This record gives sequence, C-alpha cells and structure tokens, in this order.
Amino acid sequence: KQIIVLPGDGVGREVMESAKLVLQAVASEFGHRFVFHEHLIGGAAIDACGTPLPQETVDACMQADAVLLGAVGGPQWDNHPSGQRPEAGLLSIRKTLGLFANLRPVKGFASLLDASPLKKEVVEGSDMLIIRELTGGIYFGQPSERTNDGNAVVDTLYYERTEMERIIDKAFQSALTRKKRLTSVDKANVLESSRMWREIVKEKQKQYPDVKVDHVLVDAAAMKLITQPDQFDVIVTENMFGDILSDEASVLTGSLGMLPSASIRTDGVGMYEPVHGSAPDIAGKGIANPFGMILSAAMMLRHSFGLEQEAKDIEDAVDTVLEQGYRTPDLAGAGERVVGTKEITDRLIDNMT
Amino acid sequence: KQIIVLPGDGVGREVMESAKLVLQAVASEFGHRFVFHEHLIGGAAIDACGTPLPQETVDACMQADAVLLGAVGGPQWDNHPSGQRPEAGLLSIRKTLGLFANLRPVKGFASLLDASPLKKEVVEGSDMLIIRELTGGIYFGQPSERTNDGNAVVDTLYYERTEMERIIDKAFQSALTRKKRLTSVDKANVLESSRMWREIVKEKQKQYPDVKVDHVLVDAAAMKLITQPDQFDVIVTENMFGDILSDEASVLTGSLGMLPSASIRTDGVGMYEPVHGSAPDIAGKGIANPFGMILSAAMMLRHSFGLEQEAKDIEDAVDTVLEQGYRTPDLAGAGERVVGTKEITDRLIDNMT
Ligand SMILES: CC(C)[C@H](C(=O)O)[C@@H](O)C(=O)O
Ligand SMILES: CC(C)[C@H](C(=O)O)[C@@H](O)C(=O)O
Repeated sequence: KQIIVLPGDGVGREVMESAKLVLQAVASEFGHRFVFHEHLIGGAAIDACGTPLPQETVDACMQADAVLLGAVGGPQWDNHPSGQRPEAGLLSIRKTLGLFANLRPVKGFASLLDASPLKKEVVEGSDMLIIRELTGGIYFGQPSERTNDGNAVVDTLYYERTEMERIIDKAFQSALTRKKRLTSVDKANVLESSRMWREIVKEKQKQYPDVKVDHVLVDAAAMKLITQPDQFDVIVTENMFGDILSDEASVLTGSLGMLPSASIRTDGVGMYEPVHGSAPDIAGKGIANPFGMILSAAMMLRHSFGLEQEAKDIEDAVDTVLEQGYRTPDLAGAGERVVGTKEITDRLIDNMT
Repeated sequence: KQIIVLPGDGVGREVMESAKLVLQAVASEFGHRFVFHEHLIGGAAIDACGTPLPQETVDACMQADAVLLGAVGGPQWDNHPSGQRPEAGLLSIRKTLGLFANLRPVKGFASLLDASPLKKEVVEGSDMLIIRELTGGIYFGQPSERTNDGNAVVDTLYYERTEMERIIDKAFQSALTRKKRLTSVDKANVLESSRMWREIVKEKQKQYPDVKVDHVLVDAAAMKLITQPDQFDVIVTENMFGDILSDEASVLTGSLGMLPSASIRTDGVGMYEPVHGSAPDIAGKGIANPFGMILSAAMMLRHSFGLEQEAKDIEDAVDTVLEQGYRTPDLAGAGERVVGTKEITDRLIDNMT
C-alpha cells in the first residue's frame, strides 16, 4: 500500500514518526507492506516552495491509497494573504481529492475523564461519531467577494442535491454499524439549504428503516452536546455546522490530543489527521501526544484498507497503555508516569505484539 | 412609557404576568408610569388571525417605547409551511423594528452552579455578554432558494459594511462599561465576510484604545466557551455564529431559565425576551421559572428607559430570593423551597420594597 505522509508543521513531524513506527509494527506482525512517501504541505511548503500545497504534493496524493497528515499552521504564517496561508493547503487538498466525508469520532477514555471540563456523570458513556460534509457549502460557494465598492460583502452557501445525498447516505451506513441512531443537524427554520437537507434525510430514511432518526436545530445541538453528550450516536451535518459542532464536541471528554479524524470519499481513498493542531509552543520538545495521529492511522487501516483487526489492535493497545498509567504531559494527572512522545509510542508497540 | 406586551405561546403568558407584577412594583416604588398593551404573536396569532405576526401587532410595536416578548412556538404549529410558523413572526418583528443588536448576558448564579453540566472550578466566575448581530447575514440574504430544477440550493450571507460597523461599535461601547475586553468571533480563514468583519474590528479599535481585543475563530470559540468560560468578557459576532454560540453559552451555568435577552437598536427601542422557549410540556401548570422574563424586563429598564437603579433593584432581589432558597421546579435541588411561578414572583417583590 502506498501511503503519502504529510508531516506539515509544528508537532506534526513528531507525531507522524510515531504513527509510522506503529504502522511498521502492524506490517511486520500481520505481514503487510506499507510504503511511505513524504511530501510538503502547509507552512513547511510555503517556506520551501512559496505555496501551501505544491503541485508535486497534489500529484503524489492523487496516486496514493491513503494520506496521513500531521498538522498545519503556526504564528509565522498567520499574516500571509489568505490564499497563501497553511490552511489554504488543507482546504485545497480536501477539495482536490474529493474527500467529502469527514468522520470525527468522540469517545471518552475512562482513565482520562477527570480532565474533562464536564462533570463525570454528564460526560460518562459518551461515544459519538460526527459526520461533517467537507467539500461543499459556504466554504466553497461563489460568489465570495466584496461588492458595492467594498461597502458590502457576500459569501454563498451552495449545495447540489447529490452532495447532500452522498454524505447523508454515508451517515446512515455508519449508523448501521453502530447504535443505529442518527441525529441530523440543520437550521431548517431559517435556511432553504437546511430545508432541502431535511427533506433528503427523510427520503433516505425509507431505505434504512432500522435507523432511528431525529432532527435537531444547530443551536439546540450546540446546547445538547454539553448537557447530554451521551445521548448522541451518529451526528450528520453540513460543512460549517460540522466545523463548529465537531470542535465543540472535541473538548467534551478532556482529551483533545487523543482524537483522530478521517476525510474520505466513496472509493475508500482518505486522508487521516489528528484533531489537534500544530501546537507550536511544544513543537520539537519530544513531548507531543502521538495518540491522535496513531488513532488516525488506525482509522486509515479500517476505512481505506479494510483492515479491521489491525485497527482494533492499535486501539486496544492505546487503552492498555493508558491503563498502565503512561501519559504524555498534556494528559498528566497525579500519580501517573509522564513520558515523552517516543517512549509512549514504544510502550504502545510493546502492547501490540 | 408605552410597553407592548406579547405573551406568545406556552409558558409565555405565565412568565409575562410575573414581569408585569414586578414592573408595577417598580413603578409604584419609584413613581413611574408604565402602560401595557397586549398583542398577539406566534402560534397564538396563527390560531387567531392565520399569521404569526399580524399587522396590528407590528403597528403597535412601531409606536412603542419597548416590547416585552414571552415565548413563541409549540408542536401544534411545527408542520405549518415555513413562512407561517411561529418563528417567522419573531424574525419578521426583529427585522421590521430594526433590532440589530442582540445582547445575551450569561452569568452564573453562585447558588445554582451545582446544576451546571460543567465542573464548578471551570464555570465559576463566568460572566460574559454575547452580542449577536440580529438583522443581517445568512438569515436574510437573497437568493435563498432552490436552483437547477430543485437539484441545488443556495443561501446567501450578505452584509453591508454599515451593518457590521454599528454592531461592532455597540460591542466596543458595551466593553467599556464592563471589563474592557472584547472577543470578536469570525471565520476569517475561510469566509470573505469574516475577513471584512475582522478589518472593521481592527479599524474601530483605534477609537477605543482602552479596550483589549482578540480575534477567535468560531470553531475555537465553541471549544473555549466550554474549557475556559471565565476568560470571556464581551463577545461580538455575526448573526448565525451568534445564534449557535449564544445558545451554547446559555447552558454553561446550569440555569437557562434565568437568562434574559435584549434586542435593541440605536435609539434605545428594544424587544426583551427570556432565552428559554415556550416549554409546552409545563405550560399552564403555574410552575414556569419567571426569572428569565423578569430579568429581561430589568434589561428593558436599563437599555430602553435608562433606569439603571430600578434594573439593579430587580437583579439584586433575584439574587436575594435565590439565597433565601426559593426555587421553581426547574432549579430545584436538595433542601430548597420549591414554589410556583406566582409565589416566587411575590417573594421577589417582597424583597424589592
Ligand atoms: C483550517 C480550517 C479551514 C479548517 C476548517 O474549518 O475546515 C479546520 O478548522 C478544520 O476543521 O479542519
Ligand atoms: C427561532 C429562530 C429563528 C431564532 C434564531 O435562530 O434567531 C432563535 O433560535 C433565536 O436564537 O432567537
């Protein structure tokens, strides 16, 4: 399998090293062959080639079976014009590869719940999958420009019916593999696009009679994520709402550094990246938490390569290492063994074999 | 002073009765004269006149010094076509009256923090004011329609520069009366409208050198509201982001039923309503929490009538009643005196005189 590796900026490189070590361990245990090709993206690419997404990186990704991404961005590039900031590379690679489905699982790790901002009785048992539409809506709609001599501005939320259908279909399919409950989030009391979204959910529902569906307005969803996070199973929503709600959800369990994400398309090609950012403040110190990246690699094994057992092995080993008390500094509480990126990765690999 | 009273639906009528009693107590104590005129809005108006916002209500509001609104909506109207649902009345009255600034204070009541979903050490000390632009953006932009024979859909986020300027100016002014810290929320890494917003904030900042400003992306703001709610003072943002974030913030302190809101324009005319909804499940039982409505009436005294002392008296009396242990059922915990809407209102008035 050809895997494109895009370490990006900040802690991206460190956590990517960990993910590669873990994947190599999987390869030798199960007899697979993973070939890694490293390319530039984000600030690192701006510095080297003057653009956040060099054509060479795009070409490589188009040939690949899967892409692993570390993190992009940092203060030194914040004042670049918008098309030349690290994030522009991210948006562009998603769109170019057609990665329309962003999967963001949010699950509390029992041994880490003390770090949650929520009361234990509120957050306990939370285990949701947020599915965000990633290549449409107001992120990409035209016009997006100043008008009236700069005295007005317009952005456009545009969706094709087929774009809504494919992500909603994906969500129903995901619900079938979980608790069969789907929450569709929209703003149907205000937006025409949300009314169309809701109609399509209702149509699709006929094909999935076993899935229980409810419709929640985005403002109500933002409340319920905090008051009853354990009531959700699969959540599906459009791009912008998904951006806000998935980030909101990511802090509920107190372990942002642990969370993976997948951005995929129908044929299984996907890009996998941790939810956390490039964390420039701790970059290069060897203390970054690699689990978000490693669990993203596990998602790659599952969603792009169909290697369910291998993915499960990694996930179980993460649980075991946490139970053994190993923690990177971001997770550390009293009486735990605080270790760096390299050591916690080694402990993880010990537990896999 | 001419006050239009729109009880609306569900518990709206009950809590409005409480607010009127409290305002009458203020009037007799301070020698003011408040005249109340009641009109229809929402589901009640649909049932009586076939429209959620009768012209007669609009005309009355246009003449008024201030409007008090209870709550609108309920399951019996949920299947009406969108222009004829109770919420349509709400959007339309905001726009017609030009109420562009929505003020949503979120403050924890020390005696109620146990009901917060957040850990006490996280939420303690939170005291923020969210200022949401209320009459522009994607809520009102055109086109908002199906295109391409129903195979695509478009909504439009449109802002005039002047619409941004006036709300941002309002926010700086509010910050001056508080801790002088302003957080501007946008999505400037993606939306052109957000880039213009951010520019205007930076321009205005020159006129308010004493206010410390920071810019936070909407996804990061959704996270920080949960992890560090006590770090905010004034937050300002556009309509849709404000809808989501203000509702998210409303559940942090565990006392949604206590929260007021104001929707105002430059000349001081305003509409005041509790943050909670019509709560059809408890309507008519005499147990609704009237404090959200009463504190909204206090905001009216402050913002529309300039009666700061009178507003303060009401707010202090609310604190006292809570300290005395009186609670409506939604607030009740162990060992407190659970009372109904009428009785808690009477206790409040006792404490004012
Ligand atoms: C960097 C930014 C454009 C991006 C987004 O909003 O999609 C990020 O917030 C994310 O969620 O991956
Ligand atoms: C009813 C709805 C249109 C309204 C809005 O989104 O503005 C409500 O959610 C609010 O925040 O007052």
